[in-house]
Amino acid sequence: MTKRKRPPQRRGEAMVGAVLQVTLVQLGVVGFERLSVPEVAALAGVNKTSVYRRWPTKGELVREALASVLGEPPDFVATGELRADLLAWGRGALAFAGSPVGQAVFRALLSADDPDLRPLASELTRTTKGPMGLLTRAVRRGELRPGANLELALSTIAGALLQRLHVEHRPADLAYLTQVVDLVLDGLRR
Amino acid sequence: MTKRKRPPQRRGEAMVGAVLQVTLVQLGVVGFERLSVPEVAALAGVNKTSVYRRWPTKGELVREALASVLGEPPDFVATGELRADLLAWGRGALAFAGSPVGQAVFRALLSADDPDLRPLASELTRTTKGPMGLLTRAVRRGELRPGANLELALSTIAGALLQRLHVEHRPADLAYLTQVVDLVLDGLRR
Repeated sequence: MTKRKRPPQRRGEAMVGAVLQVTLVQLGVVGFERLSVPEVAALAGVNKTSVYRRWPTKGELVREALASVLGEPPDFVATGELRADLLAWGRGALAFAGSPVGQAVFRALLSADDPDLRPLASELTRTTKGPMGLLTRAVRRGELRPGANLELALSTIAGALLQRLHVEHRPADLAYLTQVVDLVLDGLRR
Repeated sequence: MTKRKRPPQRRGEAMVGAVLQVTLVQLGVVGFERLSVPEVAALAGVNKTSVYRRWPTKGELVREALASVLGEPPDFVATGELRADLLAWGRGALAFAGSPVGQAVFRALLSADDPDLRPLASELTRTTKGPMGLLTRAVRRGELRPGANLELALSTIAGALLQRLHVEHRPADLAYLTQVVDLVLDGLRR
């Protein structure tokens, strides 16, 4: 009997996960400017050529790392009801935002003096696949009115969690997330 | 004719303003832990005994400095209509939040590893005299329903501005402030 090999696809995914995780940690620890792609590759135990093949620039690597924790989790299944979907997505974002790595990453974003990180940060909320997709689908099925300010809603939800966790230093649990989502959805729907 | 003297009250106010301003700058530059009251006094050109007489601890000094920019401005006159009052207050808070000193201060709050700064930051939104007073008065005159979550509303407005300015690095002007206030007030009123 031959030894089972993991399929190549799976190996690629594991590599991607390790590289993105190390990228987030490094972003928090050393910041964007001093983040080194070869060092990320070494810490993740991956050949740096493989890293550059998938992410030709540091900006692309960091963008995907941020999207991986702020976007839809891989096992996310939309229910088709906006409030439930936002809460399901928010639980993942909240878990990241409340972790030590999450705090360090927000600190790096907040002090983004680096001109390359700023545009990346500025488009994060707008383009992150997960939550914006949930809102646009809710408009299409008539749950939200066309013309509702979806970017504003997302920035407001994200900002309320950031403020609570990292400025006020108070716990943000599922109950708090629910209050924020309800406040913003009520505002959008009025 | 004798030389005019400034009245003592005025001199006290000018001293207070200078000390609070220097405190904010130092909080942003060196952080809470390394902030030195004697150094603040020296930079403000004030005798350190005068500083300690008014603010016996560093925490009290920093609390008043933060409240001075996030609370009601000295010339604030409430109109008695919640939306107008929140916008008038928010203009001042926004001007501070968008300034280099404001960014540095938020960075200091965000990285508050210092156990003494955390409780101070956590009660900031709840106790800051200005905006919370506007909301509680609006409840009293029936503009908001009793039991409306005022803390949540304030944290959400503050967080939305913080997110926009310092995470997304996009401009936040009066139009943006108005959108945020309307979203949150609509949510509160629904």
